[in-house]
Amino acid sequence: MRNNIGKNICLFSLLLLFCLASVSVFAEDGYRLWQRYDLIKDTKTLKNYRSQLSQYVIQGNSPTLTVIRKELQLALPNLLGNPISEAKQLSGKGNLVIGTPQNSALIKELPLTDKLASMGPEGYVILTTPVNRKKMVVIAANTDVGALYGTFHFLKLLQTNQNIDQLGISSAPKIKHRVLNHWDNLDRTVERGYAGFSLWNWHKLPDYIDQRYLDYARANASIGINGTVLTNVNANALLLTPVYLEKVKALADAFRPYGLKVYLTARFSAPIEIGGLKTADPLDPQVKDWWKKKSDEIYTYIPDFGGFLVKANSEGQPGPQNYGRSHADGANMMADAVAAKGGIVMWRAFVYSNEMPEDRIKQAYNEFKPLDGTFRKNVLVQVKNGPLDFQPREPFHPLFGAMPKTPLMMEFQLTQEYLGQATQLVYQAPLYKETLDADTYAQGEGSTVAKVIDGSLHSYELTGMAGVSNIGNDRNWTGHLFGQSNWYCFGRLAWDYTLTSTTIADEWLRMTFTNEAPFVNPVKDIMLDSRETMVNYMTSLGLHHIMGWSHHYGPGPWIKDKPRADWTAVYYHRASTEGIGFDRTAKGSNAIAQYFPPVQQKFGNLATCPEEFLLWFHRVPWDYKVKSGQTLWDELCYRYYGGAEGVKQMQQTWNAQAAYVDPERFQHVKTHLSIQEKEARWWRDACVLYFQSFSKKPIPAGLAKPEQTLEYYMKLDPKFVPGI
Amino acid sequence: MRNNIGKNICLFSLLLLFCLASVSVFAEDGYRLWQRYDLIKDTKTLKNYRSQLSQYVIQGNSPTLTVIRKELQLALPNLLGNPISEAKQLSGKGNLVIGTPQNSALIKELPLTDKLASMGPEGYVILTTPVNRKKMVVIAANTDVGALYGTFHFLKLLQTNQNIDQLGISSAPKIKHRVLNHWDNLDRTVERGYAGFSLWNWHKLPDYIDQRYLDYARANASIGINGTVLTNVNANALLLTPVYLEKVKALADAFRPYGLKVYLTARFSAPIEIGGLKTADPLDPQVKDWWKKKSDEIYTYIPDFGGFLVKANSEGQPGPQNYGRSHADGANMMADAVAAKGGIVMWRAFVYSNEMPEDRIKQAYNEFKPLDGTFRKNVLVQVKNGPLDFQPREPFHPLFGAMPKTPLMMEFQLTQEYLGQATQLVYQAPLYKETLDADTYAQGEGSTVAKVIDGSLHSYELTGMAGVSNIGNDRNWTGHLFGQSNWYCFGRLAWDYTLTSTTIADEWLRMTFTNEAPFVNPVKDIMLDSRETMVNYMTSLGLHHIMGWSHHYGPGPWIKDKPRADWTAVYYHRASTEGIGFDRTAKGSNAIAQYFPPVQQKFGNLATCPEEFLLWFHRVPWDYKVKSGQTLWDELCYRYYGGAEGVKQMQQTWNAQAAYVDPERFQHVKTHLSIQEKEARWWRDACVLYFQSFSKKPIPAGLAKPEQTLEYYMKLDPKFVPGI
Repeated sequence: MRNNIGKNICLFSLLLLFCLASVSVFAEDGYRLWQRYDLIKDTKTLKNYRSQLSQYVIQGNSPTLTVIRKELQLALPNLLGNPISEAKQLSGKGNLVIGTPQNSALIKELPLTDKLASMGPEGYVILTTPVNRKKMVVIAANTDVGALYGTFHFLKLLQTNQNIDQLGISSAPKIKHRVLNHWDNLDRTVERGYAGFSLWNWHKLPDYIDQRYLDYARANASIGINGTVLTNVNANALLLTPVYLEKVKALADAFRPYGLKVYLTARFSAPIEIGGLKTADPLDPQVKDWWKKKSDEIYTYIPDFGGFLVKANSEGQPGPQNYGRSHADGANMMADAVAAKGGIVMWRAFVYSNEMPEDRIKQAYNEFKPLDGTFRKNVLVQVKNGPLDFQPREPFHPLFGAMPKTPLMMEFQLTQEYLGQATQLVYQAPLYKETLDADTYAQGEGSTVAKVIDGSLHSYELTGMAGVSNIGNDRNWTGHLFGQSNWYCFGRLAWDYTLTSTTIADEWLRMTFTNEAPFVNPVKDIMLDSRETMVNYMTSLGLHHIMGWSHHYGPGPWIKDKPRADWTAVYYHRASTEGIGFDRTAKGSNAIAQYFPPVQQKFGNLATCPEEFLLWFHRVPWDYKVKSGQTLWDELCYRYYGGAEGVKQMQQTWNAQAAYVDPERFQHVKTHLSIQEKEARWWRDACVLYFQSFSKKPIPAGLAKPEQTLEYYMKLDPKFVPGI
Repeated sequence: MRNNIGKNICLFSLLLLFCLASVSVFAEDGYRLWQRYDLIKDTKTLKNYRSQLSQYVIQGNSPTLTVIRKELQLALPNLLGNPISEAKQLSGKGNLVIGTPQNSALIKELPLTDKLASMGPEGYVILTTPVNRKKMVVIAANTDVGALYGTFHFLKLLQTNQNIDQLGISSAPKIKHRVLNHWDNLDRTVERGYAGFSLWNWHKLPDYIDQRYLDYARANASIGINGTVLTNVNANALLLTPVYLEKVKALADAFRPYGLKVYLTARFSAPIEIGGLKTADPLDPQVKDWWKKKSDEIYTYIPDFGGFLVKANSEGQPGPQNYGRSHADGANMMADAVAAKGGIVMWRAFVYSNEMPEDRIKQAYNEFKPLDGTFRKNVLVQVKNGPLDFQPREPFHPLFGAMPKTPLMMEFQLTQEYLGQATQLVYQAPLYKETLDADTYAQGEGSTVAKVIDGSLHSYELTGMAGVSNIGNDRNWTGHLFGQSNWYCFGRLAWDYTLTSTTIADEWLRMTFTNEAPFVNPVKDIMLDSRETMVNYMTSLGLHHIMGWSHHYGPGPWIKDKPRADWTAVYYHRASTEGIGFDRTAKGSNAIAQYFPPVQQKFGNLATCPEEFLLWFHRVPWDYKVKSGQTLWDELCYRYYGGAEGVKQMQQTWNAQAAYVDPERFQHVKTHLSIQEKEARWWRDACVLYFQSFSKKPIPAGLAKPEQTLEYYMKLDPKFVPGI
């Protein structure tokens, strides 16, 4: 039947269009992410693609090649509306050839040796090249996974309607370990998760491999993510027992063909809890031996096990300091246990002490900087983008650049713990880029954080970037549809941090919604503005950590008198009748001293400190004149009101897009923006009223009066906020 | 474009077939339930349907009529592969006319008055009838919701390829309140839920109406379920505060067009917890007043609010007995609060005391029987099918028939707490039917439980049937695909308990998978045998309550020494070297006295007691000869082994069906059966070894040796079992 139909391509595609238009049995619930593969609408592009693609040739067999075949079988007939299929041999025209010199004789014959030599194990080339005088598209790599990455790149070209007439693409990742961190608990709750519950159905593992696990791996492979830490950094030692290792093995086996490695979080006290030892002292021979044997055991289940991610001596987690040892002692002990098998340890620098009277944001630097050079070669120290905790805006973490002998891994937070959580549209590429592009001056101007991370500044071999996952079992994966863009941009930036936020938003929108410019352009503006808009209605001018208690939902600048001062809001904003802000100059906590001198000078000087970090580094009187010429108080008000107004503009822009989006997804985003608009007003009114109780100044003329009293907002007590 | 294509029906459908076969962008994840509407495969049937259906005419407008229109727009073009659409007027042929005499002039003109008179507010007729000498199909009802039910019935005829040439169907529900009970907590965990977490995203409500809520309502409407209790009977009073009532209202508004009413669970102590009162004494005027005002408040949000479901003085829940009052006092107080607005109270009879030394299964009867006749007219006493707690098999609850002046509502458990939980295929219609068909002899022979429930035996006006939901946020709704059949059969039996298990299985399989007989027949056998198979490998011969501690997962006949004797297993099976079983005859707990004399005699006499209830009612020596001629011990062994063997047969049958099912769903069921096969062996081996430690007899020759020791099974300690 296929052949008959294939011949009448035009009629077929017309009818396919009808099918796709009228057959709406399938919910447009966002499950397909950016991998939709709907028929290409632009007829000229479609015609051109059809003329260039009539079959694909893949030689050899491997699980990853099977994945490539399946992806093409899914993508090409749907994108092109033609029954394109695999062929054993080249035909006269329209060939797509994919493989490696090792598995494909066709590719081996091509003059690609030089090109591939610099591509490494994951890079690829996509070339339009003549074979026997016939044009064909070649996707070549040194490994099957490289070929898979190339395949997804090529499909993206089609999905985004790019010209494929003369392709000459080569791409290799700038970062070696591109890893999602799932803060998923074994009971399937997700710490700071706002997209339902954990994907991992531990109860049905190892036997039941949910199709969703494979779709998860597919999505990751499509953006180059090559590792996943399955469980919460606040770890449970049970994960390391045979019952759970069997389950982890099943996931690792399912992910392997997609180039996705599994890592585990290791609870430092596991030798006591599940090993029967009396200590977890990292210098104790029995403890070392336990971790070595445990690691060897894990490798019997998962030969390519990636290694451990550890949160130690932070927020109540056990760690080496319980035994008077250093973080390096702990990390090295575990690193030794996995080194022989090629494993790594990602040791988090997010530490702060219960008792320390020191400015919290200084503690990680103070603890880790002296340890530089003492870590094993297979240890990465994983550092959050900023020194506090994933705030809407923070300056870059001063550890970046400060540990020239230690590979530092970036930790971004995709899940929007402090960024509007379940309901707000915040595209985070601008936030990630802001950090990556920040200049540490570690080796003079141009010593960007990105160059620290990619190993080029200090010649690290080992490089990594982690994203704390925003993925859950909601049908659309990320709760808010636009949360998908943060998963997407994390993967893209981990592969190539030089990509712009605009480029990535453009790609994502085209693949997720449509290529039509009247949609893509305005909605891209929504995305690009969204983070700054949020900063304005939450924490402009360098404010930070003023969110609701414990659940972190909504505003809570009044939070005080908690068990720990550095878990309150007043600790950070320090508002009084005189002014507001945390003095971190030499006159204050002197946190600026942790930066290199040019940065110190810029941040430390009220005149040169970027306004977005003003109250992060300085304590400023209410009538201090900011750059706009306004007083600090007025500026703060204008920012809060401007942020809330910005959400209204996002709404208006989106609400004009009904023609371009299916009703279900249109409504989804529309409703979420409407919630966000309410929440932005809530933030605005609560914060302005609260800070006004110190500034004693009127809200500038022309701005609407807050809708409720400060007491009203302070009494709000949201229950059952997800993700705690 | 549509018209051009429509003309070439044959080619179109050929191509549609191709589309549907080759376009697999959409995961076959079971989301569509039994409402798939794939193109009808049988060409003769398809041709016939096409000749009879070319347009539909619906006059009038209402939210429910909109639902009907949307369903037809979705179903008909997909089922028939024709762009069938709505028309304003009758055409020459192929008309489908839907409506009520009130909203449709076409229907008003037809001689349907007599027929509709007996159909009540929810019944409908589906007739092939001539209008102006042209044949047409009419779906008529007294209300829009009746028309919706009729529409779903008609679509089912098409989905199951029934002859529609001369339709003369009339149907009305035998039970008035057909209600799902969700044991969903506000944090989205589900007590005894095995399909992920709660559908209700309280955090995003009231603003965000997930499409899934509408699909849930659609599915319920398609099987006649007309009520839903959103939350756990172990209730949280917060639900009754304005913040949550806003959210409940949003759900009620979404469900209303589908004929689905919302009910809430009421925490008895709510007047104290959220009302600021010092007591919840149901006779206290302030308490009465609080519930009245609270109910009035709820009705301002939800004008058609259904009423309350209450679990009181049971398993630690507060209730009227805390104040020395009776269940009737409590129920009546709440019933008075909602009576004026037409609300009802469903008061659960599942009560047993912490301190009572009495046989637990007698307690509900003992407490409720004396209250007969003292309940308000709008109270239903909701009684579980059996007197213990949803065991794989229980005799019917002795309260059925024993309260002639009180409407009793049936409570079935769809979620498989004791029936294999997340992983086992158990089709429950035979279990429900067994209870419904059981003869109470309350008014002589033929006084079946069904006749108690439907009000005919004791002339109740108010009737109801509740199903404890097995629905969660898993993409396939019920975790195990075949769990959908339990949701389905509950709805169908609540509408018409005279339907056979076979008929319902047949319908469900055809709609969910395929109409092809080589698939339907063997897989129907799997379904019909599945419950008995499970009973055999879990609790044959009347055994009960021998499952794992607390999570109820897997076997636990050794459970003893717990805070309460009646939460252990040894309390129920009483195995010793002499024999096994719970003597509930006059010589024992005399629970049989709660049944009417003919039932007493049957159950009480070892010779006449049905073997499936043997150890429920009798204590029996190990070498007692059962009907097969085997000793009790040997018979028990054969049953355990036979049950486990039965699962293997289910596997073999299913594994031969790959040709009829898409790969994703085929694999899903295959894997779950493989897990079930392991779990059945676990039950078998653990129970046989445990009981052997008392019987001291060998496992009969020919049966395989258990795979592990008893100690091994007793040490198994599954963690993080879902649904606790």
